[in-house]
Amino acid sequence: MATVKLIGYENASPEAREVLDDIRKTRGSDFINAFWLALANDPPLLKQVWGEAKSVMATASLLDPLTKEMIYIAVSVTNGCSYCIHSHTAAARAKGMTPDQYAELLKVVSLAAKTNQLVTALQIPVDDVFKVGE
Amino acid sequence: MATVKLIGYENASPEAREVLDDIRKTRGSDFINAFWLALANDPPLLKQVWGEAKSVMATASLLDPLTKEMIYIAVSVTNGCSYCIHSHTAAARAKGMTPDQYAELLKVVSLAAKTNQLVTALQIPVDDVFKVGE
Amino acid sequence: MATVKLIGYENASPEAREVLDDIRKTRGSDFINAFWLALANDPPLLKQVWGEAKSVMATASLLDPLTKEMIYIAVSVTNGCSYCIHSHTAAARAKGMTPDQYAELLKVVSLAAKTNQLVTALQIPVDDVFKVGE
Amino acid sequence: MATVKLIGYENASPEAREVLDDIRKTRGSDFINAFWLALANDPPLLKQVWGEAKSVMATASLLDPLTKEMIYIAVSVTNGCSYCIHSHTAAARAKGMTPDQYAELLKVVSLAAKTNQLVTALQIPVDDVFKVGE
Amino acid sequence: MATVKLIGYENASPEAREVLDDIRKTRGSDFINAFWLALANDPPLLKQVWGEAKSVMATASLLDPLTKEMIYIAVSVTNGCSYCIHSHTAAARAKGMTPDQYAELLKVVSLAAKTNQLVTALQIPVDDVFKVGE
Amino acid sequence: MATVKLIGYENASPEAREVLDDIRKTRGSDFINAFWLALANDPPLLKQVWGEAKSVMATASLLDPLTKEMIYIAVSVTNGCSYCIHSHTAAARAKGMTPDQYAELLKVVSLAAKTNQLVTALQIPVDDVFKVGE
Repeated sequence: MATVKLIGYENASPEAREVLDDIRKTRGSDFINAFWLALANDPPLLKQVWGEAKSVMATASLLDPLTKEMIYIAVSVTNGCSYCIHSHTAAARAKGMTPDQYAELLKVVSLAAKTNQLVTALQIPVDDVFKVGE
Repeated sequence: MATVKLIGYENASPEAREVLDDIRKTRGSDFINAFWLALANDPPLLKQVWGEAKSVMATASLLDPLTKEMIYIAVSVTNGCSYCIHSHTAAARAKGMTPDQYAELLKVVSLAAKTNQLVTALQIPVDDVFKVGE
Repeated sequence: MATVKLIGYENASPEAREVLDDIRKTRGSDFINAFWLALANDPPLLKQVWGEAKSVMATASLLDPLTKEMIYIAVSVTNGCSYCIHSHTAAARAKGMTPDQYAELLKVVSLAAKTNQLVTALQIPVDDVFKVGE
Repeated sequence: MATVKLIGYENASPEAREVLDDIRKTRGSDFINAFWLALANDPPLLKQVWGEAKSVMATASLLDPLTKEMIYIAVSVTNGCSYCIHSHTAAARAKGMTPDQYAELLKVVSLAAKTNQLVTALQIPVDDVFKVGE
Repeated sequence: MATVKLIGYENASPEAREVLDDIRKTRGSDFINAFWLALANDPPLLKQVWGEAKSVMATASLLDPLTKEMIYIAVSVTNGCSYCIHSHTAAARAKGMTPDQYAELLKVVSLAAKTNQLVTALQIPVDDVFKVGE
Repeated sequence: MATVKLIGYENASPEAREVLDDIRKTRGSDFINAFWLALANDPPLLKQVWGEAKSVMATASLLDPLTKEMIYIAVSVTNGCSYCIHSHTAAARAKGMTPDQYAELLKVVSLAAKTNQLVTALQIPVDDVFKVGE
């Protein structure tokens, strides 16, 4: 039900195929999920988004890979992005998320949604001690 | 600019004061932030929300305290809850978040917002491999 | 901090003033809140929005006025519209909302935010019995 | 397309089954909708969420059951939670919502979305008379 | 999966049919998309919404029709309204949007989502030069 | 009230200053708004975001600069990002947006929010003719 046709690897332009090859190599898997096949309609956009995603998510950093995936899920759930929730929950599991860790993630994100709603309803003023950049 | 008056500890009902005392004890600090002073207008709600927050956030669990705060920030930013962003960013720092970790958090949550938007615009169908509960 | 100047009644165009007069008359009060003074920059928009608001909110209907205000608050909180939360919470109080009713409203809207988040995270498929229009 | 398998009543753990039994009893129906069967993967979460939902929604209170369902729908629509919209619209109908009341609900929630958007675009400052907690 | 049955043209009330006829005439096409067939359950709502949509979208104005469709898409994507994204992307294409223009639209809306998220996370104070209505 | 201190040009690191210089040069103005001064806390993030913003917004392209700003505003309003609304409304005016064009923008974004809400409430199924990528 996409708004564009997904581009199969075989039909991708050379510029797009270069990015798709790097996705396969970086992940060590031949499977390419639909997001990248949709972006392949616009090779420069595909290249920019993959470059950024690779830099942020697939590069060793101060936050471990599973923590980054859980943060990604938290944003995706709050935005209600169904595809993103499915793909990043799968990615988190591939990176070792256990059912118990997932259950905890659910508790944190749903508590946050609830208290966000209460705070917003009550229009609580920010405590002075929380202010930094003034 | 709240929609209710904040209840000072001195003016709180005995039922509310019991919760406020537990907040102070759990956190090892006399300071009580405005969210709880607003909820103190309705002691049963204050008690329920604090009980849940304490259970999820202040209890030792599979996810470490800083990871939980960063997930909380991710939801709060996506919901645009100003108070929540301020208070949980402060909490994350109190639990050891460094400027470099914060910078990484910003990269993950902003990348997620961007790709969420792209996926939603393109209405990408969920890949079969991501589906679990069918 | 608006993106436009608020138009005082005295400076409003005749077309805008006609609408502002109707707001005063309908509400039985000389006070006009800032939303309408901002819309007065574009009299046709002011007229269209007030006409719709008056028709939906200020006309006797199947839902009583307080119920409509509480539904309005629920949407405004979920959208995080600070001005709207302030103005409609004030309107609900003017229409009789008690502190206990307000506390219940908070419980419902925050529970809904929490379960919405859980359902979205889990990507629950819609039960067949809930489907109507197929 | 859930991110977890739904747990059938027969496969539920004793702890989960106790909650599922209470859902059936409270509602006077054998049918259990998918949300609870998904939460049954984590019995303590199932228990906490059902306990809160029962307390807020299924207990006699100052707001009548239909009003609470309509407020729930308002939040769910604004959050774009498809499952929640389907289930709570069905619940509201089961509690007596007529087509004419539903049409009015649609008018209020869509008007609210529209004026929220206008207010946010215009960044209207909150009128002093609306401020309470200062 | 709608929450109401779609009303076919043949089954529509005379009041609804008058609006449906105007939709066909205005668009120069017999096809009526599902949104209007759902609203046909409540003829006055159908009439109000079509009247507003026709006035804003189908009337010659300062903004050209394609620009208005792209702005509509931007809102719909950010709200995550799947039906709206599909229908307005189709409408934009019918009004001449090329693949290259669509790719640019995607770049702008995803960049905006990303910087919105960064700004919200950082809680940047508004620069004085940006303030108008004070 | 930011969560970080704004970095003045004088206190910026050489890497950050290079980006700030390019912002000044690209815009032909010495003024640097607070967003970039906040990002200057993390020079690589500043560089990445400015590079992307410059490429998308400040480069000649198929969409004219004002159209891009109006699309940006549409996203920012829907996300409720106050700073972004202020800064991009100012930018749109600097690029020639007239009060009448602004009034039209308001009509489109508020109509979109309203119909998005109706469509979501009614859970309208996507018409087959709107589906492309299957």
